Amino acid sequence: MARERDATSSELRHDWLADRWVIVAPQRTERPFDFVKYVDVPREIVECPFCRGHEASTPTPVASYKRGAVTDPQDWSVRVVPNKFPAVTDGCPDEALAMAAAPFPMLPSENAETGQSIDLFRRRDLSGGHEVIVESPNHLNSISQLSPEDVRLVFRAYRDRLGYWLDERNVCYAVVFKNVGQDAGASLAHTHSQLISTNILPPDVKRSASRMTEYLETEGRCLFCKTVEDELEQKVRVVDQSPGFVAICPFASRIPALVTIYPTDHQSQFESLAVPQLDQLAWLTHRTIRRIEKCYPHAAYNFVIHTAPGCERNSDSFHWRLELFPRLTKVAGFEWGSDCYINPLTPEEAAHSLRQAGV
Amino acid sequence: MARERDATSSELRHDWLADRWVIVAPQRTERPFDFVKYVDVPREIVECPFCRGHEASTPTPVASYKRGAVTDPQDWSVRVVPNKFPAVTDGCPDEALAMAAAPFPMLPSENAETGQSIDLFRRRDLSGGHEVIVESPNHLNSISQLSPEDVRLVFRAYRDRLGYWLDERNVCYAVVFKNVGQDAGASLAHTHSQLISTNILPPDVKRSASRMTEYLETEGRCLFCKTVEDELEQKVRVVDQSPGFVAICPFASRIPALVTIYPTDHQSQFESLAVPQLDQLAWLTHRTIRRIEKCYPHAAYNFVIHTAPGCERNSDSFHWRLELFPRLTKVAGFEWGSDCYINPLTPEEAAHSLRQAGV
Repeated sequence: MARERDATSSELRHDWLADRWVIVAPQRTERPFDFVKYVDVPREIVECPFCRGHEASTPTPVASYKRGAVTDPQDWSVRVVPNKFPAVTDGCPDEALAMAAAPFPMLPSENAETGQSIDLFRRRDLSGGHEVIVESPNHLNSISQLSPEDVRLVFRAYRDRLGYWLDERNVCYAVVFKNVGQDAGASLAHTHSQLISTNILPPDVKRSASRMTEYLETEGRCLFCKTVEDELEQKVRVVDQSPGFVAICPFASRIPALVTIYPTDHQSQFESLAVPQLDQLAWLTHRTIRRIEKCYPHAAYNFVIHTAPGCERNSDSFHWRLELFPRLTKVAGFEWGSDCYINPLTPEEAAHSLRQAGV
Repeated sequence: MARERDATSSELRHDWLADRWVIVAPQRTERPFDFVKYVDVPREIVECPFCRGHEASTPTPVASYKRGAVTDPQDWSVRVVPNKFPAVTDGCPDEALAMAAAPFPMLPSENAETGQSIDLFRRRDLSGGHEVIVESPNHLNSISQLSPEDVRLVFRAYRDRLGYWLDERNVCYAVVFKNVGQDAGASLAHTHSQLISTNILPPDVKRSASRMTEYLETEGRCLFCKTVEDELEQKVRVVDQSPGFVAICPFASRIPALVTIYPTDHQSQFESLAVPQLDQLAWLTHRTIRRIEKCYPHAAYNFVIHTAPGCERNSDSFHWRLELFPRLTKVAGFEWGSDCYINPLTPEEAAHSLRQAGV
């Protein structure tokens, strides 16, 4: 299976979850480059809305965290506020009621079977939430600059807010993600994450969930439980571990140096983690980001927490995961045209470098 | 259908081809931005491998074009060479023979039904071609700087090379694409395009082809013939026309200011265009790129020609198209996590600005 390859030619690797082939092309890294590479230049920040003392620049927080109880509104370590420029807004009260009564009203990959002709110009209202998790009152640019204790508070905010949207609001889909640096889609430099929840289940998330179910039905066990077991045995793509979690460069990564953190035991809901587990995860994530920053200084990065969508909670097949990736390459014309990605760095080589990075 | 909306809230639009919902969120453009926006800074070019006089820096050309016959190897306007750092390389002769005998050996979204357990670490060899179309002997940075006559030669090269790979080599998939600027994935500044052909059919291309077939079977006509007819009637998203072609900002664009050029009559193969049609298309593409450059100066951009893959040639359902898009936003954590895109510019507004841009 793991035969030797000529390092000057490409190979295809199959991503079983996405059912997609990825082109791994290490020889592409040698090509010449004509441009001066970008490094983010922050504007002079006069009034960062996320800094302590500027609390009035953001909407009223929905949650605040510090070590000990928050008594003074300016005395916080982590603060969750509604996004002032939301991509998703709350529906009208009628819609909210309808959502609560029928939690998954709209599975977008189905077409309504109305007997009428297909509508090529369909529009729907979107409802849900868009929140910002401000990770520090100080103007820091990466979560790696926080103390381990403060990172734990950030992860508590992730857990509580995902729980709020998925439990209390009964929404279909909720995701926590982080954009650091302009190339990763950030517009503000002050360290923060975001949560979006929607009344639709994005087709790609639905497809992934179906693949996990298909794997369980065919093989009699969870896809990622098996993946973690195989990866721990093969070792070549393992980056780091903490009790209950493992960080791996997946076999068929479509982008270079992507790391996925999995719980080693089967868990479908990130938001059900108990505090000691959450602290272990915060520690491993913090360390992994520091490894990435050491290997790729100044690189923009993202992370995304894929927890079970509303319809897959408590599922035997859905295994939650956190994906973390520096933005070292651009999505170019070929990728846009084919949804087939060319990755110039083998996951084995990426894992090796990240392991070596002393943190 | 086209009801009035509150400009401060988002709506979902359904992309029928991809069966994907897009979040159109015009209110997002108002958010603050902390970084100095990038503009490409070219390095000082000492030895551009694509300039006249440096022909020896690239492999032997597979085709050359000028007005009149090419007699002197240095006397060319457009030159097609194998990529020196290919993402895809030719298979061994045995594989090439196998490909010719069984043109579509590998439809990657199927799993081999072997009765064995699922292999989570599947690898395959990749074969095909990777070529570079050098569009001028002079060190220009955009195809818009070429004369209309020279742009026609570039489009002849596209047609001939797609024809070569899809006809003569009997490959499964071939695509022509263009990356201009660092944000669009370009590594060299000298104006050029690329062609990649593969022995696999990317799942996304297969899915699109299936959707076109589904539309034809349900509605009794071609999806894009109908789309073009509706768009010409509604007018609001039409950017420009030339005899036989129309440029439109599609209703459910996942990225801002994307323009698709369609032939107005049904055609499945770009590479079957006769010269007069090809010249009309070259002219409309050239004009559309100039519109984009006028509206969004210094923006990186891509284009991609989606012609019928090997298995869909001469199909009644597949309608070829050319997609052209400036890179105004980044793919951020939410998009990577969900494959659901947030577009902050309505296609109607984009088409309006592009129409107004005098070229």
